[in-house]
Amino acid sequence: MNANEAYPEALRRLVAYFKRLPGVGGRTASRLALALLDWPDELLAAFGQELGALRANVRWCRICGNLSDGEICRICSAPGRDHSLICVVEVATQIPVIESAGCSRGLYHVLGGRLLPLEGIGPENLRLPELRERLGTGDVIELILATSPDVEGEATAHFLAAEFADTGVRITRIAAGVPVGADLSYADAATMARALGGRHSLD
Amino acid sequence: MNANEAYPEALRRLVAYFKRLPGVGGRTASRLALALLDWPDELLAAFGQELGALRANVRWCRICGNLSDGEICRICSAPGRDHSLICVVEVATQIPVIESAGCSRGLYHVLGGRLLPLEGIGPENLRLPELRERLGTGDVIELILATSPDVEGEATAHFLAAEFADTGVRITRIAAGVPVGADLSYADAATMARALGGRHSLD
Repeated sequence: MNANEAYPEALRRLVAYFKRLPGVGGRTASRLALALLDWPDELLAAFGQELGALRANVRWCRICGNLSDGEICRICSAPGRDHSLICVVEVATQIPVIESAGCSRGLYHVLGGRLLPLEGIGPENLRLPELRERLGTGDVIELILATSPDVEGEATAHFLAAEFADTGVRITRIAAGVPVGADLSYADAATMARALGGRHSLD
Repeated sequence: MNANEAYPEALRRLVAYFKRLPGVGGRTASRLALALLDWPDELLAAFGQELGALRANVRWCRICGNLSDGEICRICSAPGRDHSLICVVEVATQIPVIESAGCSRGLYHVLGGRLLPLEGIGPENLRLPELRERLGTGDVIELILATSPDVEGEATAHFLAAEFADTGVRITRIAAGVPVGADLSYADAATMARALGGRHSLD
């Protein structure tokens, strides 16, 4: 009988769920599940409720594609944001990293991924028609391409620069400064601030 | 706006729950919560359900106090276990560690803690009447004290040896071998096997 087999079924099922999370191995999963046994009933029920309802409670902004409580996200609906600036990111989880740098007061546009030809992900899988529509209103002066500084992110940025060259909007790319090859989701605020400050034209 | 403030309320609430777990900081909590956003709806609902129902589904064995699916745990109800041997542990989560060593085929008794006089935890807080009753049936030949090999665990073991000296049952203590000062919950199987093999009388 190994350690896990000695646990009740319900606990083993919970451990199995935790093991599906990234970076959580068998021992960590057991530790987390066992810790939950000591929680008060109400807290445990509330956690379970919150977890099960996550997808129902978190929506995607109709305008920019950011994670949102309602139809329009808190950035698109905030007063005082600069509507002439749109920062393009691959996924919504990269927005908080850029916000934490504190030097962009514009809006965002979430592509919903990046070009991965070998995996069959092409331009038709990205939110490009929505972006073209936003650029067509005449409000936008600059489009910052903040895709990750790795091979696929660079390729996606160059594709976007060519794709939207006809719009007359100034297209810029965040500067080197963020470590090359890294995932933008985990950049620190200082590095991100340098990258935003050193952006250059891609015309 | 820091990174977390850019997230929807529902996501921030979920992150707050994850941060309550041991060893989970802000960044890990965010990572876990964001990963859940990519899960299929049914899986997420099932995880939430399992988590909320944990306390309702996991019970404590009426005989030994182990974690259990039903009234009697799978060890107490298993055929072929040696009913003449009872291994005393502090908490139920230490049982799988001993089971994984593979050299104890007896039963267990969970104390439900250990003596901590400074925190007001005395003998009256441990499951001692239940243990005395089990020792009184005449079936038990040996009582192995497998409390943790740190100060409080040793004190608890010596207290138990004195407390049950009148029962005529042979009382033994697991050997040094498990690293002193460590929590028994995290001992590896090889170390645990040595500790069980080298147990000595406390008469």
